[in-house]
Amino acid sequence: MSKYKIVIAYDGTEYGGWQVQKNSTSIQSLIQKALSTIARAPVGLTGSGRTDAGVHAMGQVAHFELPELLDISKTLHSLNGILPKEIRILSLEPVPDTFHARYSAQAKIYHYRLHLSKNPNPFDHRYAYYVPHSVDLNVLKEAASHFVGTHDFTSYANAPNQGSVAKGGVRTLYRLDIVPEENGVRLEFEGNGFLYKMVRNITGTLLDVCAGKIPMDTLDSIFSAKDRRKAGRTAPAHGLYLFQVKY
Amino acid sequence: MSKYKIVIAYDGTEYGGWQVQKNSTSIQSLIQKALSTIARAPVGLTGSGRTDAGVHAMGQVAHFELPELLDISKTLHSLNGILPKEIRILSLEPVPDTFHARYSAQAKIYHYRLHLSKNPNPFDHRYAYYVPHSVDLNVLKEAASHFVGTHDFTSYANAPNQGSVAKGGVRTLYRLDIVPEENGVRLEFEGNGFLYKMVRNITGTLLDVCAGKIPMDTLDSIFSAKDRRKAGRTAPAHGLYLFQVKY
Repeated sequence: MSKYKIVIAYDGTEYGGWQVQKNSTSIQSLIQKALSTIARAPVGLTGSGRTDAGVHAMGQVAHFELPELLDISKTLHSLNGILPKEIRILSLEPVPDTFHARYSAQAKIYHYRLHLSKNPNPFDHRYAYYVPHSVDLNVLKEAASHFVGTHDFTSYANAPNQGSVAKGGVRTLYRLDIVPEENGVRLEFEGNGFLYKMVRNITGTLLDVCAGKIPMDTLDSIFSAKDRRKAGRTAPAHGLYLFQVKY
Repeated sequence: MSKYKIVIAYDGTEYGGWQVQKNSTSIQSLIQKALSTIARAPVGLTGSGRTDAGVHAMGQVAHFELPELLDISKTLHSLNGILPKEIRILSLEPVPDTFHARYSAQAKIYHYRLHLSKNPNPFDHRYAYYVPHSVDLNVLKEAASHFVGTHDFTSYANAPNQGSVAKGGVRTLYRLDIVPEENGVRLEFEGNGFLYKMVRNITGTLLDVCAGKIPMDTLDSIFSAKDRRKAGRTAPAHGLYLFQVKY
């Protein structure tokens, strides 16, 4: 068997997320189907992790195995020919048998795009969250600095995945940068692992601090509470991008 | 009666164009309905011109009349609250009775976005035309220069509108600029009037010249033929934007 790694970008707006869900089409199943058509045999695809319905990706990673070697460039072209335009395979390469899209991942980068301009824009509403209140960037930056480092992020995880038995909810966030964009800012999260809905819950909490709903000086006590109800709202899916998986 | 002018931006992807068409929702009818809800009486809306199904706008203009003065800022807010997010009213202002969205227009600017990069991008396919062949920008620029000025554009007009009885197919294109973008170029057309599908037919013809299908030195004879069949293909709707109407 030969093992291959693919890097995938997708506009998640009209899909039910990476993994199969009821009553909706998953991105994983469409790519599996396209691979199976090309290979003329069922092919299983393992992703680096799930993305929820509506979440986008610029660098999702997955692996699959085939009994024989592929013509790389032809297969990449055929895959993009079969797949809908909202799902693009950016690269395809052979990897050693030891590679695993999920377990070999060393770090992940997520982006969350906030539209802060008052100017309405019909072209961005699928791709950024229009924040309905004003945001003081100094407050946002100060609040963000509380999240960088190693913490128990249980208060920022939705059920059912609030951390594994082995690691609990402890994760390390290497950076949480606030990068200016044309109509707002992009939050860049880089960490060694993320709990379920952690990026959206941190983003929602940062915005709740900006909106005056959560006092800045309670952020540390929210960590120690290990209680999802103490943290802020969940920011919507359509502002979130899985940007890169590092191996 | 009081007269008002609105400037509208829309993502045309999922609409049947500006004006009512069979089996699809028109942008004009949605705005008329929203205005009628606010005014509690039927309101008619007159646009600067039609845009086809799938064509976008950053600055479509329309006017309407009401028996009494509106609270401008409140009405603008209500309109955007009622309308889908793909349609945004950018501004609303009172205008003199003599203003007419169509007949008062002095010039129009259209943009046509060409995606020329080989890198697949799932976020741009609704908003730019992915050109399936290579494009030499020097050839594109030279071909574009043939269109600037006053010409009979009948060969670039689709039926049924190949020009009015009064003006025929003669129009003046003030400029056709080629502006670099992140993944390609944007063609900017500014003229005193445009025939039906003229921008898309000129764009398709420019690309046919780049693809070697139409010789550069036949461009002048295509004008004099006054025959749509002599010009090139029609570029698809989703790359086209009505950018601005000048009064």
